[in-house]
Amino acid sequence: MTVTLRELAGQLQARLVGDGDTVLTGVAGIEDAGSGHLTFLANPKYAQHLKLTRASAILLPPESATFRVNSQDVPPGLALLFHPNPYYAFLQALRVFHPGPPAPEPGVDCSARIGKRVHLADGVHVGPNCVIEDNVSLGTGSVILAGSFVGTRSVIGEDCCIGPTTSILPGCTLGNRVRIHPGTVIGSDGFGYAPYQGRHHKIPQVGGVTVGDDVEIGACCAIDRATMGQTTIGRGTKIDNLVQIAHNVQIGEDCIIVSQVGISGSTKLGDRVTLAGQVGVIGHIEIGNGAVVAAQSGVGKSIPAGGQHFGSPSVDFSRQKRIIAAMHSLPEHVKTIRSLEKRIAELEARLNGSSRPPID
Amino acid sequence: MTVTLRELAGQLQARLVGDGDTVLTGVAGIEDAGSGHLTFLANPKYAQHLKLTRASAILLPPESATFRVNSQDVPPGLALLFHPNPYYAFLQALRVFHPGPPAPEPGVDCSARIGKRVHLADGVHVGPNCVIEDNVSLGTGSVILAGSFVGTRSVIGEDCCIGPTTSILPGCTLGNRVRIHPGTVIGSDGFGYAPYQGRHHKIPQVGGVTVGDDVEIGACCAIDRATMGQTTIGRGTKIDNLVQIAHNVQIGEDCIIVSQVGISGSTKLGDRVTLAGQVGVIGHIEIGNGAVVAAQSGVGKSIPAGGQHFGSPSVDFSRQKRIIAAMHSLPEHVKTIRSLEKRIAELEARLNGSSRPPID
Amino acid sequence: MTVTLRELAGQLQARLVGDGDTVLTGVAGIEDAGSGHLTFLANPKYAQHLKLTRASAILLPPESATFRVNSQDVPPGLALLFHPNPYYAFLQALRVFHPGPPAPEPGVDCSARIGKRVHLADGVHVGPNCVIEDNVSLGTGSVILAGSFVGTRSVIGEDCCIGPTTSILPGCTLGNRVRIHPGTVIGSDGFGYAPYQGRHHKIPQVGGVTVGDDVEIGACCAIDRATMGQTTIGRGTKIDNLVQIAHNVQIGEDCIIVSQVGISGSTKLGDRVTLAGQVGVIGHIEIGNGAVVAAQSGVGKSIPAGGQHFGSPSVDFSRQKRIIAAMHSLPEHVKTIRSLEKRIAELEARLNGSSRPPID
Repeated sequence: MTVTLRELAGQLQARLVGDGDTVLTGVAGIEDAGSGHLTFLANPKYAQHLKLTRASAILLPPESATFRVNSQDVPPGLALLFHPNPYYAFLQALRVFHPGPPAPEPGVDCSARIGKRVHLADGVHVGPNCVIEDNVSLGTGSVILAGSFVGTRSVIGEDCCIGPTTSILPGCTLGNRVRIHPGTVIGSDGFGYAPYQGRHHKIPQVGGVTVGDDVEIGACCAIDRATMGQTTIGRGTKIDNLVQIAHNVQIGEDCIIVSQVGISGSTKLGDRVTLAGQVGVIGHIEIGNGAVVAAQSGVGKSIPAGGQHFGSPSVDFSRQKRIIAAMHSLPEHVKTIRSLEKRIAELEARLNGSSRPPID
Repeated sequence: MTVTLRELAGQLQARLVGDGDTVLTGVAGIEDAGSGHLTFLANPKYAQHLKLTRASAILLPPESATFRVNSQDVPPGLALLFHPNPYYAFLQALRVFHPGPPAPEPGVDCSARIGKRVHLADGVHVGPNCVIEDNVSLGTGSVILAGSFVGTRSVIGEDCCIGPTTSILPGCTLGNRVRIHPGTVIGSDGFGYAPYQGRHHKIPQVGGVTVGDDVEIGACCAIDRATMGQTTIGRGTKIDNLVQIAHNVQIGEDCIIVSQVGISGSTKLGDRVTLAGQVGVIGHIEIGNGAVVAAQSGVGKSIPAGGQHFGSPSVDFSRQKRIIAAMHSLPEHVKTIRSLEKRIAELEARLNGSSRPPID
Repeated sequence: MTVTLRELAGQLQARLVGDGDTVLTGVAGIEDAGSGHLTFLANPKYAQHLKLTRASAILLPPESATFRVNSQDVPPGLALLFHPNPYYAFLQALRVFHPGPPAPEPGVDCSARIGKRVHLADGVHVGPNCVIEDNVSLGTGSVILAGSFVGTRSVIGEDCCIGPTTSILPGCTLGNRVRIHPGTVIGSDGFGYAPYQGRHHKIPQVGGVTVGDDVEIGACCAIDRATMGQTTIGRGTKIDNLVQIAHNVQIGEDCIIVSQVGISGSTKLGDRVTLAGQVGVIGHIEIGNGAVVAAQSGVGKSIPAGGQHFGSPSVDFSRQKRIIAAMHSLPEHVKTIRSLEKRIAELEARLNGSSRPPID
């Protein structure tokens, strides 16, 4: 795959300063890039790398009061591409050089099992050994990869990519451009039991799961259906691998849920919430818009919009940093307490117990 | 789905006070319920909602010294259904209005692969693309859903529901009415290696897994087989999603194991133990009957029957609450220590270093 | 399965003292073993069990200055087998008595789907309902069990065992004798998004996963492909169930990664690193050769070779033990602080505020 700099600048909508006929063959980080490569510099603080790169072209932020390219820092033959967001433009270039596998051919593999009254829109691909149950609807251009299961009455929007080996259980609804990775289960039963006469009795889980447009869910996740109503995952939210979302959880838009997070039942996340790896969130609370929770935290109370939490149980991030700092010196603090105790006892003894005056 | 109040009262074995001809169309929580709905009030402390509900019927606990229905609090047209456990009765009603999908038709899908000497009892369903290996036994009425695998010599009891996309590996034994959700693996190898000449050598895992009656296991769990003997999960125990049960673990009856818990090898849980979300339990310990471990705890020592543990490493629950309270004020305690140090030094200076008497 | 002691001693390369014609029928731990059983004693500190065992033969370490068998401690009829590593020899014996299921017959099941230009070496087995995409290579003697998926261009070495119900996504490379357990996904997309104009934009994940010889990966794990380049797992490393390995992680040789561990992007582990259960490791750090991290720790900084870490955030193991000890007494320390405060205030009052001399 090769492309001229002129073509690439056009595709990326970047302003080119340099020889448009230069042929590019790939992309790489600024230190690894060689001849024929495009690289990028997103952060002016790394500007010193500019003069050392062996790349043929570099994406840069627009020149501004705080960032200006000094022409003597530009190695001979290095072309400059100015773009408002060099990293984003670099990702676009990455796609140009690594276009990914071609979309699977539309059509249903002969080994797939398709139920009754299934709606297959134009361009749908159903791979080998998939099982699509009755009354499912698959939107235009959606791809169900090998060995996946879509249960009865589930609705999958346009241009989705499901699988391979993924399970969408009955009655779930996915928007457009949703990606679900292998091993993930959408619509598993919520974990609910009523105690009665010394036994646990299953609470029927009759609700569903609704996943918004542009959601991506990683591998080996479990997203439980609601007891009644819907577990919802808002537009643009991205979920990493091995994440547990319990019944009736409501997740807003554009959230980032990192690997191995667990969110308990009926908890509500606002928009643009970030939960870092291995975070646990208790049920029936609210986490406000834009809140951020640090890795391994255990969230036991609602967090207001914009809140930053850390620790188990979690508290305000900067507060937790101070607590940890104090905790890490705790053995010394305890020693200090012991020595203070002794010193006070001595002072007391001198002031009380001794018949001699304290200043003798 | 509609039912008269008289029919429903009969089915729930509830005492009806009101018009038995009222037609019900659904169930809902007390604040959401509208005309035609059944709701419930399990906790007398929420009795004030009674007069505001728009439901057509309400399940109530039996009248008693501490709970009495004041007739002027009952909205006109609201029928009362008295039951010893209103919540449990409500769940039964939930099943009446949401009966769930009909059980799959008995029979073996033409795409399923059935080995030799497989015993299929009456009413067994084996779904599309399932693989049932040699010498498997499936009990009356059991359902193996699409894409599931049952390995050689495994025995599945009556009225079980496995899958879709679940793996029961060779030589595992499931009781009756067991439910295993998608993506879960029963009988994966225990994680055991013997170090020898600088390498890890696999310890053969030749035991099995035995799962009791009425056990439910969520999605994407891994239940390892025993090295020798059996990993066992006792009758009535309920396991949430993404749970890890290591080799030779023994779990008693009616336990509740919440999502993302991990239990290390050879540990023994009694009956009615509760492990909350993301708890980790070390190997080779015992957790007594009725013990409860709070979320994210790390259990490093045996817990006696009835014990309540919290923290990582976990200690007695109320003790841990006090530790956390102290920890959350630790920065202030450290400040206090620093100020005490200064004040003591001043006192000492006044008593020692100064030639002036301290009382000047 | 029976074997004479003479035969077994030969197979295990152990020195026999006793009747070589004794017939053995199985193996068991020293306390459980009965007539016909082989047992072992690896640790001289348990030597007192020797005289009580009912086994017919016992594996022992070579006699040495610190370990000597006293003939009057040997029960009549108990044969002795001396071996440099009795536990390892015992595992070999375990394999003799529990040889495991016979390897599946070479060949491709009629229900498996094999793509174009697939290389199937001698002795390869592809089980029912497997999907092997175009341009895959399967090495001599490798076994792909039921319902597994191997994506296009993936290369699997010799004598591997994959599945059942395992997904190897496109472009991954496995060495020889690799075992991957059910539900695991190799090559899921790394979790990377670039923020641009208020949305998260997927970073193309165009790299792969390279797994070394003799690696074993448990059930329900997710091993992400690299953004560019390779996520690598070194020779002989063993990974338990439900583990998350993020994009571009580099794991060395002979590591032990216990269940539910999560390792964030681009982190590098040396050789012989041990991460205990539920450990979380931040991205872009290095963990040196032979380092050990205790269960549930959260590693936020690089660990030097041989380091032992514990806690969240983790610090040196013995330091963390002291911190925990101090923390577990924190409520008492706080009480002491309060009482010291009072005592100092009294001393100060006596020295300052009072007109009376402090020694009255």
